[in-house]
Amino acid sequence: MTAPDASAAAAPIAAYYEGQRRIRIGPASTPPPAPGEVQLRVSHCGICGTDLHIYHGAMDARVRFPQIMGHECSGRVAALGAGVERADLPLGQPVTVMPLASCGQCAACQAGLAHICYELRFLGIDTPGAFQTHWNVPAQTVFPLPAGLSLRHGALLEPLAVACHDVRLGEVSPGQQVVVLGGGPIGALVALVARQKGASVLLSEINPFRLELARSLGFDAINPLEQDLPAATMERTRGAGADVVFEVSGAPAAAAVMTELLRARGLAVVVAIYGQPAPLDLFRFFWRELRMRGARVYERQDFQEAIALAAAGALPLDALISETRPLRELAPSFRELESGGDKLKILLEI
Amino acid sequence: MTAPDASAAAAPIAAYYEGQRRIRIGPASTPPPAPGEVQLRVSHCGICGTDLHIYHGAMDARVRFPQIMGHECSGRVAALGAGVERADLPLGQPVTVMPLASCGQCAACQAGLAHICYELRFLGIDTPGAFQTHWNVPAQTVFPLPAGLSLRHGALLEPLAVACHDVRLGEVSPGQQVVVLGGGPIGALVALVARQKGASVLLSEINPFRLELARSLGFDAINPLEQDLPAATMERTRGAGADVVFEVSGAPAAAAVMTELLRARGLAVVVAIYGQPAPLDLFRFFWRELRMRGARVYERQDFQEAIALAAAGALPLDALISETRPLRELAPSFRELESGGDKLKILLEI
Repeated sequence: MTAPDASAAAAPIAAYYEGQRRIRIGPASTPPPAPGEVQLRVSHCGICGTDLHIYHGAMDARVRFPQIMGHECSGRVAALGAGVERADLPLGQPVTVMPLASCGQCAACQAGLAHICYELRFLGIDTPGAFQTHWNVPAQTVFPLPAGLSLRHGALLEPLAVACHDVRLGEVSPGQQVVVLGGGPIGALVALVARQKGASVLLSEINPFRLELARSLGFDAINPLEQDLPAATMERTRGAGADVVFEVSGAPAAAAVMTELLRARGLAVVVAIYGQPAPLDLFRFFWRELRMRGARVYERQDFQEAIALAAAGALPLDALISETRPLRELAPSFRELESGGDKLKILLEI
Repeated sequence: MTAPDASAAAAPIAAYYEGQRRIRIGPASTPPPAPGEVQLRVSHCGICGTDLHIYHGAMDARVRFPQIMGHECSGRVAALGAGVERADLPLGQPVTVMPLASCGQCAACQAGLAHICYELRFLGIDTPGAFQTHWNVPAQTVFPLPAGLSLRHGALLEPLAVACHDVRLGEVSPGQQVVVLGGGPIGALVALVARQKGASVLLSEINPFRLELARSLGFDAINPLEQDLPAATMERTRGAGADVVFEVSGAPAAAAVMTELLRARGLAVVVAIYGQPAPLDLFRFFWRELRMRGARVYERQDFQEAIALAAAGALPLDALISETRPLRELAPSFRELESGGDKLKILLEI
């Protein structure tokens, strides 16, 4: 093992989730990378809504204590395990990670849908994550960052890949009318990627900070509690209805309204994670032959597209990063995010 | 106008729905066909679930009193209105009717989806229907029956076209695993068409008569109140899940269970008409990237396919016709169908 930069020489630390909203920052003792693994010296790691979910205890049955969270990361190659021969991963190479480990055996894997493997392990949830100085991950999950793509932006590639996946599954094409329900980090990224594909985007959000942020990015954005979203959609589309609606909010009211927004055979993409079944207007599905599909994580091509978009400077990623903080501020960041603070994406420097 | 057969010379009659479950059989005075119309001497007309719905008063706001219902018909060409030049429609020609009239102007029509026109008029609901001796319809709705296809089977082509549409939108391909929820006339036809496409079909139905009928047609059919439908589906598909589920029952329990039956990216086709929003497991949509689409009526190609399948004798259509009765028995037939009588499709001879 080689330490490619000075920071790697500092005492390794990690953030441990210990249940009941407790986060402990403490020493870490990452083992050397196993055969087939790459060890990263983690640089940046974003806080995902799922991390907040874990912090709230909602996934205590799934994680192992103490859990090191974090999966939206960038870093540099610090060591290669036995058998890893990747010319694109020299020591010190800036990289990001697609944090999925599939079984390769199940019906989904056999059908070419490894990203929704029936036994999928998500790195940072089902395994230790990137809120630590050094992180060992399977080599096939590691993507090199092109020259000129910063480590800071590298930590946004995982959520950006989600958005690329959502927009691809949404079959968005130039000139289409798109409505995005929810203007959090994923909603904002979906809106940006859809616009980059040539779509006209209307964003719906109830949080004033997020609403204003969407507007500052140049989007038409409305608060559905104050404005009539179906009427606004019909006006934009001259009564036809939207081609695609992305449901990124997880609010039952959004599921209820989305069927009113779509044109004949329009497509609703369910990106949000619903804790409970939500009432849906199935009559409208029948009447207008609406379509709906769920979209989860990403496939390799989505990660590649995210990297290409970011490297090309095609998206205003800086505008999405509300703050960059040291790892020790993970717990206060969780508390700030759960109180609905005026933050979109918080990055931690490890 | 020419009367091509003796029956046409009998005094014309019609069945009139007068509200509050009243059906009156009385004289009819059908005007000559208007320009662009064809007049049929109606032969057979099936009773559809929608007719029963009208009879129950559920569509009193939509129909006009007295309403002549009926849209699953066969008949012979009795007269042609001015400007109708169809070499395939000589007087006396056996025909069926695709009972849709589109506006040609709306966003759906402009998008090539005239069958779900935003201003769609359904013949027999929004206009007088086929429960009468003579019926005038737009010429473009009339399809000639090939030689050898009986007028009796001709009256099944409309529901068969529904099934062809559903299966086409379900993208059913050979070797796929299909589950049909609901074994009424449309469910049974969907199962038959899906099997004809090479799919392996499991049918779910709670009515013992319909369950037995499905079995007599050679389908694996289970009662989900007595057997574990998800377990049976997983057993048939070796844990993978079904490729396509057709929801033809309209039961909220079916909407709730269908997400449990599907493989990764499997497709639910909503054929049933839901009166109320139904709770749906949107988490499962996300988790397995499930797909759903509504399917309503049919397009011209579906009618053509239905005619071809019936003419080829590819489906056991006789097994679906429980009884053939004179038009005057429309009211008792409604009462029998609403009491869940052991009937699948009742045809009326006009």
